Amino acid sequence: MSLKSIGQVRNEVKEPGMRDWGRVASSLVIDPNLTECVEGLEEFSHIIVLFWIHKSRGFLLKLHPQGRADLPLVGVLSTRAPHRPNPIGLKAVRLLERNQNILTVIGLDAIDGSPILDIKPYMSMDSIPDAKHPDWVSKLSK
Amino acid sequence: MSLKSIGQVRNEVKEPGMRDWGRVASSLVIDPNLTECVEGLEEFSHIIVLFWIHKSRGFLLKLHPQGRADLPLVGVLSTRAPHRPNPIGLKAVRLLERNQNILTVIGLDAIDGSPILDIKPYMSMDSIPDAKHPDWVSKLSK
Repeated sequence: MSLKSIGQVRNEVKEPGMRDWGRVASSLVIDPNLTECVEGLEEFSHIIVLFWIHKSRGFLLKLHPQGRADLPLVGVLSTRAPHRPNPIGLKAVRLLERNQNILTVIGLDAIDGSPILDIKPYMSMDSIPDAKHPDWVSKLSK
Repeated sequence: MSLKSIGQVRNEVKEPGMRDWGRVASSLVIDPNLTECVEGLEEFSHIIVLFWIHKSRGFLLKLHPQGRADLPLVGVLSTRAPHRPNPIGLKAVRLLERNQNILTVIGLDAIDGSPILDIKPYMSMDSIPDAKHPDWVSKLSK
């Protein structure tokens, strides 16, 4: 299974290590040949962005979330850490505008230059307000 | 960018075309070498599953959602259709149990044999109850 980049993330965050992504604005620059693919996306307030974590430093079976020894040692797939078997990042973000092939979003946790793999419209089935998680999740920094 | 399968979906749906996935139970059989990766996942009520749509019949720039001429012609990335540049499926589903390397979930819209690419714990940041979408989304069958 091989992936093609459909575009690139552009923002001010040039290296991994950022913790507070909430206010980071990013431009998702989609390949101009694929502009038609994003027509209509501007009617959604939020989108799900899948990107390649191109600076992931490899795979770990288990880890402490955010490298914090005060949090339990858990399987990597029980966390959102980048050290995954397939380093795919996923974030649901606010879509501010679409200008042709360029989407402006807020809060994407991808560094500048990250290849974009897929974009999906956020739909009501994606929202599960009563989902339960273990206590350690509440202690993560955002 | 190349992907490795980390496991396979097992269920009763052998061919594409299913519309009502809500009650379909699936076993996510993770590669036994990766059992440690899913330790702790059972503490989450819901997980996000990324899978390869291995029977996707190719890519379309624009389409009518669910092939319905009464819905508008929109870019494929404004829909959840399988005809994407990278045929990656994504669904947030209820996790019923974990038994070692096997996760039992309800409502995953992946056919039997689909390669699993990634699993992520569903967290509060994934839930956006006030997200807005265009009217045609309300007309889709689930």
